Amino acid sequence: MNAKKYVYRFGGGQAEGNKDMRELLGGKGANLAEMSAIGLPVPPGFTITTEACAYYHEHNGKWPEGLEEEVRAGVRHIEQLMEAGFGDPNNPLLVSVRSGAALSMPGMMDTVLNLGINDRVVEGLARRTGNERFAYDAYRRFIDMFGDVVMGVHHEHFEAVLAALKKEKGVSEDTELDAEALKELVRRYKEVYRQHTGSLFPEDPYEQLYRAINAVFESWNSERAIKYRQIHKIRGLLGTAVNVQAMVFGNMGERSGTGVCFTRNPATGENELYGEFLINAQGEDVVAGIRTPKSISEMKQVMPELYEQLVRLARQLEEHYKNMQDIEFTVQEGRLFILQTRNGKRTGVAAVKIAVDMVDEGLVDPKTAVRDLVEPAHLDQLLHPRFKSETAYKDRVIGRGLPASPGAAVGQVVFTAEDAEAWRAQGKRVILVRIETSPEDVGGMHAAEGILTSRGGMTSHAAVVARGWGKPCVAGCGDIVIDYSTKTFRAGNVVVKEGDWISINGSTGEVILGQEALVEPSLSGDFARFMEWVDQFRTLGVRTNADTPQDARKAVEFGAEGIGLCRTEHMFFEGDRILAMREMILATTLEERRAALAKLLPYQKEDFRGIFREMAGKPVTIRLLDPPLHEFLPHDEKEQQELAQQLGIPVETVRTKVEALKEFNPMLGHRGCRLGITYPEITEMQTRAILEAALELKQEGVDVRPEIMVPLVGTREELEHQRRVIEETAQKVFAEKGDRIDFLVGTMIEVPRAALLADQIAEVAEFFSFGTNDLTQLTFGYSRDDAGKFLPYYVEQKILKDDPFQTLDQEGVGQLVQIGTERGRKTRPSLKVGICGEHGGDPASVAFCYKVGLDYVSCSPFRVPIARLAAAQAHLRAEAQKEKKAVMVDV
Amino acid sequence: MNAKKYVYRFGGGQAEGNKDMRELLGGKGANLAEMSAIGLPVPPGFTITTEACAYYHEHNGKWPEGLEEEVRAGVRHIEQLMEAGFGDPNNPLLVSVRSGAALSMPGMMDTVLNLGINDRVVEGLARRTGNERFAYDAYRRFIDMFGDVVMGVHHEHFEAVLAALKKEKGVSEDTELDAEALKELVRRYKEVYRQHTGSLFPEDPYEQLYRAINAVFESWNSERAIKYRQIHKIRGLLGTAVNVQAMVFGNMGERSGTGVCFTRNPATGENELYGEFLINAQGEDVVAGIRTPKSISEMKQVMPELYEQLVRLARQLEEHYKNMQDIEFTVQEGRLFILQTRNGKRTGVAAVKIAVDMVDEGLVDPKTAVRDLVEPAHLDQLLHPRFKSETAYKDRVIGRGLPASPGAAVGQVVFTAEDAEAWRAQGKRVILVRIETSPEDVGGMHAAEGILTSRGGMTSHAAVVARGWGKPCVAGCGDIVIDYSTKTFRAGNVVVKEGDWISINGSTGEVILGQEALVEPSLSGDFARFMEWVDQFRTLGVRTNADTPQDARKAVEFGAEGIGLCRTEHMFFEGDRILAMREMILATTLEERRAALAKLLPYQKEDFRGIFREMAGKPVTIRLLDPPLHEFLPHDEKEQQELAQQLGIPVETVRTKVEALKEFNPMLGHRGCRLGITYPEITEMQTRAILEAALELKQEGVDVRPEIMVPLVGTREELEHQRRVIEETAQKVFAEKGDRIDFLVGTMIEVPRAALLADQIAEVAEFFSFGTNDLTQLTFGYSRDDAGKFLPYYVEQKILKDDPFQTLDQEGVGQLVQIGTERGRKTRPSLKVGICGEHGGDPASVAFCYKVGLDYVSCSPFRVPIARLAAAQAHLRAEAQKEKKAVMVDV
Repeated sequence: MNAKKYVYRFGGGQAEGNKDMRELLGGKGANLAEMSAIGLPVPPGFTITTEACAYYHEHNGKWPEGLEEEVRAGVRHIEQLMEAGFGDPNNPLLVSVRSGAALSMPGMMDTVLNLGINDRVVEGLARRTGNERFAYDAYRRFIDMFGDVVMGVHHEHFEAVLAALKKEKGVSEDTELDAEALKELVRRYKEVYRQHTGSLFPEDPYEQLYRAINAVFESWNSERAIKYRQIHKIRGLLGTAVNVQAMVFGNMGERSGTGVCFTRNPATGENELYGEFLINAQGEDVVAGIRTPKSISEMKQVMPELYEQLVRLARQLEEHYKNMQDIEFTVQEGRLFILQTRNGKRTGVAAVKIAVDMVDEGLVDPKTAVRDLVEPAHLDQLLHPRFKSETAYKDRVIGRGLPASPGAAVGQVVFTAEDAEAWRAQGKRVILVRIETSPEDVGGMHAAEGILTSRGGMTSHAAVVARGWGKPCVAGCGDIVIDYSTKTFRAGNVVVKEGDWISINGSTGEVILGQEALVEPSLSGDFARFMEWVDQFRTLGVRTNADTPQDARKAVEFGAEGIGLCRTEHMFFEGDRILAMREMILATTLEERRAALAKLLPYQKEDFRGIFREMAGKPVTIRLLDPPLHEFLPHDEKEQQELAQQLGIPVETVRTKVEALKEFNPMLGHRGCRLGITYPEITEMQTRAILEAALELKQEGVDVRPEIMVPLVGTREELEHQRRVIEETAQKVFAEKGDRIDFLVGTMIEVPRAALLADQIAEVAEFFSFGTNDLTQLTFGYSRDDAGKFLPYYVEQKILKDDPFQTLDQEGVGQLVQIGTERGRKTRPSLKVGICGEHGGDPASVAFCYKVGLDYVSCSPFRVPIARLAAAQAHLRAEAQKEKKAVMVDV
Repeated sequence: MNAKKYVYRFGGGQAEGNKDMRELLGGKGANLAEMSAIGLPVPPGFTITTEACAYYHEHNGKWPEGLEEEVRAGVRHIEQLMEAGFGDPNNPLLVSVRSGAALSMPGMMDTVLNLGINDRVVEGLARRTGNERFAYDAYRRFIDMFGDVVMGVHHEHFEAVLAALKKEKGVSEDTELDAEALKELVRRYKEVYRQHTGSLFPEDPYEQLYRAINAVFESWNSERAIKYRQIHKIRGLLGTAVNVQAMVFGNMGERSGTGVCFTRNPATGENELYGEFLINAQGEDVVAGIRTPKSISEMKQVMPELYEQLVRLARQLEEHYKNMQDIEFTVQEGRLFILQTRNGKRTGVAAVKIAVDMVDEGLVDPKTAVRDLVEPAHLDQLLHPRFKSETAYKDRVIGRGLPASPGAAVGQVVFTAEDAEAWRAQGKRVILVRIETSPEDVGGMHAAEGILTSRGGMTSHAAVVARGWGKPCVAGCGDIVIDYSTKTFRAGNVVVKEGDWISINGSTGEVILGQEALVEPSLSGDFARFMEWVDQFRTLGVRTNADTPQDARKAVEFGAEGIGLCRTEHMFFEGDRILAMREMILATTLEERRAALAKLLPYQKEDFRGIFREMAGKPVTIRLLDPPLHEFLPHDEKEQQELAQQLGIPVETVRTKVEALKEFNPMLGHRGCRLGITYPEITEMQTRAILEAALELKQEGVDVRPEIMVPLVGTREELEHQRRVIEETAQKVFAEKGDRIDFLVGTMIEVPRAALLADQIAEVAEFFSFGTNDLTQLTFGYSRDDAGKFLPYYVEQKILKDDPFQTLDQEGVGQLVQIGTERGRKTRPSLKVGICGEHGGDPASVAFCYKVGLDYVSCSPFRVPIARLAAAQAHLRAEAQKEKKAVMVDV
């Protein structure tokens, strides 16, 4: 009955398994088989199947019949290919033993290296490598590792002995122990082993091997592994596989060596082997930094054939994996072994160049290039200035905040928005440093090269505004303490004064003393070609959030197909507008309010004209006034007095109004359509401004497509009310102008109730736009402005996987997006559905939006290319998934 | 083919229709038929079916064949029974014509009275009644009504003529016009009619009748009626029925009269005929107040047989309708007619007495008594003191606020909590008057008889706390302006000083100058018996929200079956506790915090001991600390200094902490389990206090059932974290005490995400309690504290049907309750699910909780009886619904 095969061999350019046998061989085993099968010189070995593990657990730790013979045959297979003997002191073969289930899983036994050493073998190893110290170091490490992971003797016991010995020898570093000392250490380690296990350290290599295999089997049912499977709902796996593989040594003389290389330059994308290597060394030596590795190109001289082989292998690997590879290799006595290969990390510039080159080389088609070769985050690097060197400044970093808006900036420190504007006017480059920013600071923020705040999160005012402009920003940098009165800030012991130069890295959150050299972004030909392919495979629309003609123009350059969110409140802060706005708020009668609104009308109309012109032929979604009115009033005494004077009213009136508008929870207060309903005249004015601007441009021949969006709707009746006001105003405007224009009326879905009752709301709405910022706030009950007190801790403690204000919480908030979309479309199949808010530019969130069938996402201009790529990838991955399923059905 | 019957007659103790024929006869017609069929002397008449109306609309305003003959036969039927002739001047029969569909519907034609009068009939009417003025007044009213509702001649045209005539006659009231003047008015009215219709007023009674019938048919398709049906989604009705009924006159001499009576005393519930009547008068005379009606008991003397007949009818009606009836009757020349009967309105005391008496009399069974005879709101009246007279004080009302906590209270005005306590200590009764209250005022609030605030809504601090105690409260009374500095408040022109007496009615919101007489509530034997029946038919559990042993005891008296919400934060405000609490908040290290918490532990334990003792054998759900910490710190300079002194720390430290804890939206901030997670030592202390108290009482032989509730959970991981802390603490406490006790761990569901992911959360929770206050805030995005700015307007404008903080929004918030319950139980079928929060005591919300299958509702002690009754009624009504369906299936 024992026809079952429990051991699968690999090596020598062949393998019994392949990459599709993950269930049986585990991920690692299947991958080793695959690499071997395509002819890569991986160190030979074999994999014990998960079925053997299952048998072991079902039979109280017994091995299935025949397994021992198969393991021994597997060892012989390795011996043959390595031309060495397991336990042979003259020509010793050492092996590694690793676990590997179908899914990687913490809590299982990791690795035992150098298995096969004993008192005689260690001598042989010393002879072969000509390095006694290395041999005994390998031996003592093996005893420690075997004792710890196989026999459960805690590592700390070995550490204690090592520490004691170092003290005896009067040295502080392990590396200072010589061969003799290490011999003594091996002796003592064996004693530790004996004390804790009650038996001698096994000299028989096969005993070492069997025990290690059993330890891997046991680790499958360790408490941590079981817990992990429970939490992640991993069911139906048989067990773990065990991988036994030859150890290879790069330190066996001048014909040996070790190295790491990329198949292409990961910084520039150039098609050239790129990496480092060391003659007569082990991988650890490179990591330890004891010897300085040489550039891979020098290998050409010392080992020309091997270098050629490496180049050929690199090409082969790229052809096989259809991606740039990061390879670890070792040369043992003139034989090249590939230890590991994986897709290589790369910069944004390199990613795009490699993708385009690989298409040109015929290695991949554009679809694959778009799907696999560039990450959305890569594009972010391309769109912003960066430091010439990403490492040179590390010792000048004086603080670290949140990477709130990517890109690098350099400038002189100023502490007020006014100063920023004034210095800028004098041609100076400045970094605006504030505790936090407010809408009144936008002028100065715009004038600055970058913004640094000591308070606030990824969605603070500074962060949101800066991202909108693509301006570098480091936010919430608690390392710095700002003192406005002296115009200085302190970072540790460093005091930075107004006018001092600093540099900030908005991609990493670093604050750097002094002036770093910058590289400007170049939207090269590669970028343009790549983005063209992206759009070929994209089905989800990408719009932008833009409140000004400038932003709109930028976004169109970046490929935006319309405006998904034009916030009208920002328009009220500049110059005379804020005065008219305040007059409106302080009005005590409808007539006064109408009079003040009439002053605002021409400003609004002009804003909309500019935006409509930039967006000719594209839809523009304009959100009616959203924030609570108190945001527009001055809160300090002096400004209140000025305002009272300007308006010719008692300051008491201003103060009383400010007091009356104060709210306990402004986020949940008198805002959104609640304003438009209690003051319909505001909605009337805004509607009039939108439609008059649209009609005027229409007469100039511009194709204008306005969409009026009512914010914060929670009931059908609210939207009905606002829609009535909008339509009545439209009729009036059309009658006055003797012309008409099509427009849509829709709503933000940002209150949980609106999503739940989307079927009713869709009766009145022609489009939905999920305002996922507010929807996240309300679904979790988090205030974005206050969550800094616990959210970072939550993410750190894994109570939350991600900050839900950055990556959409698919389970909770996403559920509401899905419910809202489905119910809305059920009522009105033609309903246009999009998403605006920070999540529109987050790749994972974009993929989710694609999955639930939204029509578009909308994000800040600088994230438009990212969203485009994320959307294309979501589509291509879904297609690939479908094809895979189709194949499975065929079989 | 015309076998169809279009007219159904009633009268003379018989009827062709019955109450189940609403579709065909409309609601009104079916009811008239029913009353007649059970032998009530209703004025005879007939109903034209809804099918006739449908035919009329389908055939361009043509009547179906045979309808005219049937109508004429119907009129003859009335003539016979009334012994009078339609159009007969000697003995005239007049009729009323009314519309009546299966559902009552505004926008349809209402009523035409006195139809059948013409120039000759009016003379006969004058003779029969001996009252020429009455006859012509009836005539002119008929012309006006007929012209207006049947022919579309606007009422204002008739009004204009009437006004002109009064001016000519030099009189100001209609009643001052004599018979001659009214004759002239009839002439002029006919002229108005002719001018606006182009034809003469129809003298032929049948022409009048046919036109009126057509007008009713037409009104079915009036714009308003169509709109109404659209909005309310009323579909599938054929049309309206038309009711033609004899007019009867109580002013035909001394053998005639009119009256209104209740079958039992509506104020006390005594089983006696109660009401008023007038000899030789019409109903209008009673309403107009020209003559003072007499007590119904006097009718015994003047019309003994008719009085006896009325008593018999009253009994018959009660037997038929199984309820106390409110009857309108008219006596025409010695014949008694019942015009209308309906269930009579009654006080709470009367409702309970009537219910109990009717059971004792064998008129109804306890099930019917519980289901139909007492409204939950009735009980509210029974549980609180009320004014001796509900009307006597109406002219002393100086302001009107929100009826925030029911009952009446009388006391001297004080303006601070300290004064309230001090005055109370001197034996004075006080009303605490504040702009708004805060947790620091609770001592004074408790000392006061009642509370009056000028700001805040139904869910303001004052309102919530007062309701919890069953203490009368009028909140948000904008009519009064409080000046703390002079210790006065102004209401219009009245200035009320400290020490002045006022009375407040928390059931109506009235503020009354002076001392009103009070009646204390008596939970009589009737109440107890009734509530016993209630519990027989109740399946939904009723718990209470109680934070003190006193509240707990009260609630048990009222029938609470456990505590559904014990808030622990209120416990930290008294005496030394607040100091220890503040010390804890101001601690800068874990050790300091632990030290402060250790001081709080004995207080908490004592609280729990008291509550557990009162609740022996019943579950007690204790919520861990919920509010943001800044609520516990003093916010004014002086108190901050005091605190700093007490704790021996710089005032700057206090100020900085207050500043640091400040939040933009505290409702969405660092509170609930977010506190327990960032400061697990708080959860540890509270768990320890709960379990130590429980174990101590257990050793005293008390049956303690603690349930620990984690607030504001939004993710499974949060609850997992807190559960781990609770369980680890429990193990420690159990080990220390050498004893253990069962307890549950569960969570509030008050964040939308928690309801949506209830399946995950139920993996960790043994019970759910829906915190519908916060859930409403987050589902709508309303802050309870701020919504006063728009919520009243929303309710007024029907954008919201009800204030969602008072009555659960079933469509939105209720949807989440349902989703949460279903998903939670799917994961854990044994999950206990309840609701706490204001809605637990609202009858409509209780019915909803029953419907979605919750295990219990929890409400403040004084609402426990109300919730019990609402729960029983929900069950009985559902049963009745089921039986009805079962019967329909049987048929």
